[in-house]
Amino acid sequence: MKEKQILLAHGSGGSMMHALIRDLFLPAFDNPYLRKGNDQALFDTPSGRIAFTTDTYTVQPVIFPGGTIGELAVHGTINDLAVGGARPLGLSVGMILEEGLDMDLLEMIVQRMKQASEEAGVPIVTGDTKVVERGSCDKIFINTSGVGIVPEGVDIDGANARPGDAVIISGSIGDHGVAVMSERRGLQFSTPVVSDTQPLHKLVKRMLSVTKDIHVMRDPTRGGVATTLNEIAGQSRVGIEIEEERLPISDAVMGACDLLGFDPLYLANEGKLIAILPEALADDVLAAMHGLPEGRGACRVGHVIADKPGIVRMKTGIGGTRIINVLSGEILPRIC
Amino acid sequence: MKEKQILLAHGSGGSMMHALIRDLFLPAFDNPYLRKGNDQALFDTPSGRIAFTTDTYTVQPVIFPGGTIGELAVHGTINDLAVGGARPLGLSVGMILEEGLDMDLLEMIVQRMKQASEEAGVPIVTGDTKVVERGSCDKIFINTSGVGIVPEGVDIDGANARPGDAVIISGSIGDHGVAVMSERRGLQFSTPVVSDTQPLHKLVKRMLSVTKDIHVMRDPTRGGVATTLNEIAGQSRVGIEIEEERLPISDAVMGACDLLGFDPLYLANEGKLIAILPEALADDVLAAMHGLPEGRGACRVGHVIADKPGIVRMKTGIGGTRIINVLSGEILPRIC
Repeated sequence: MKEKQILLAHGSGGSMMHALIRDLFLPAFDNPYLRKGNDQALFDTPSGRIAFTTDTYTVQPVIFPGGTIGELAVHGTINDLAVGGARPLGLSVGMILEEGLDMDLLEMIVQRMKQASEEAGVPIVTGDTKVVERGSCDKIFINTSGVGIVPEGVDIDGANARPGDAVIISGSIGDHGVAVMSERRGLQFSTPVVSDTQPLHKLVKRMLSVTKDIHVMRDPTRGGVATTLNEIAGQSRVGIEIEEERLPISDAVMGACDLLGFDPLYLANEGKLIAILPEALADDVLAAMHGLPEGRGACRVGHVIADKPGIVRMKTGIGGTRIINVLSGEILPRIC
Repeated sequence: MKEKQILLAHGSGGSMMHALIRDLFLPAFDNPYLRKGNDQALFDTPSGRIAFTTDTYTVQPVIFPGGTIGELAVHGTINDLAVGGARPLGLSVGMILEEGLDMDLLEMIVQRMKQASEEAGVPIVTGDTKVVERGSCDKIFINTSGVGIVPEGVDIDGANARPGDAVIISGSIGDHGVAVMSERRGLQFSTPVVSDTQPLHKLVKRMLSVTKDIHVMRDPTRGGVATTLNEIAGQSRVGIEIEEERLPISDAVMGACDLLGFDPLYLANEGKLIAILPEALADDVLAAMHGLPEGRGACRVGHVIADKPGIVRMKTGIGGTRIINVLSGEILPRIC
């Protein structure tokens, strides 16, 4: 790019915006959909149902241990499709750029998005760019929306948890939250904690190849495992009981939480999923998950009960029981 | 809402965010997709191709003559689907809210979105809300993405304009640009200019009921008619010739442009479309357009030529010819 900073004219709809799209976005995200240059992307319809989701990323800082806002935006929306059982077809990208944004930083973020999109095999098929005056946004905000196809016979829904079902987590929790907070506060740990940002659609595909009878899947992002389990308990009108000793938490995350006063159950994850499915299928699904890097740490953490609908309880290490509420306040603004 | 202002905790993923969604967004946008409370909406697939589009709205001020950022966000994305020939299935809404945002203002904008969505018959099926600290955005930014279905046999593409085709505009141009600028500068005209924000999918449906052989459609938003025609001339490698005297421009818009030094060809429109189609079909399509309020002012403004590919020319009222370029700078930041 000729300019070293984003100017208001880069959002004008005129020739500078065309140059930004032509020289930066199109080469990075290149694919047949984008190359058409139309206001909308067109997909042929395979059989199944269309899944559609959206997420806006405002993470601060935009670069953190293990990732940037760029791959976070690609992975996060792929994951929102994946946990519905959908095979992602394509993503949209809506950028809000602050006047004066460093062009090198934008290029770096775009390259991360390109790489994440290519590695996941999910093209960026349509987009929009707005530029706002200096001080009217914080560097860069990215919305990604996604479209996918849910195969026939898959019916994953937050309302489908049934008493007796197993509750599975695909790996260690709290990593993303600690990674962002440590960067923000300038903390360094002896074992660095890096974000778990990663796409989960291949893991879900593998799980669905074992059985289509997965009742619920959800990715525990903002609000963490505690909030996600509460949402499911509410939607399905069941109780959920987890065991503290089974929760996969790295020593580094545990140490950071002790230091910072956080509870890992409430920290955001960006590459983990919770699955709820019939107990009889849990071993086979776990074995399949262990065959992929993103599922290597998968484990049972609890089960669904008929008692206390809407309530999440945790058996603590010392033998007690604690109710896991939804937080009312904000512990980590702009974590994703 | 209990609180009078948006707090950071409204974006936390915790109980305050749940309350905001439960008490404001869900009742306003209520439909079976949203009520499910999942991370993604699921549509049954009708036959045809899936259209997918995104747009972010940062208009300033958020309330302007004839509309607010709310209906603009609903109409704009419906229109990006419509000009691809798609029947809209549903919209996503991604909001970025500034800490301290007045709750009454948010409720008003949400009500406008509800009304626009209902009037258009296009549900808001999935959403996301982020809250950023005071000063990190300007009140409210809204991303809407949209999914629709293009019926079999429709092939509308910016690359499909052919020499001899007629160029049609669905109504008067420049209204949205003047409405926003007059509000921003505190100007009052004797005849107030109001935004043309409106959905165009019903107009497109009517046009396609006359013929599926529409070659190109585009809504001339940012950058205006001049930029849109240049995009089409470039994609189709044809010349486009328009006649100044045929351009539909209201006296009020013309007067405001004279006063402010704007060229209406470059002003944003939010409820107009350009259609390019075989000349032999133009009269029938125009007659059909005239049967709907949003097409009442539809008229021929020019035609496609083989000569000068990529160039847009205008025959001026005094008999000369002027080349209509794409602007390089920014005349109206944050117009949509």
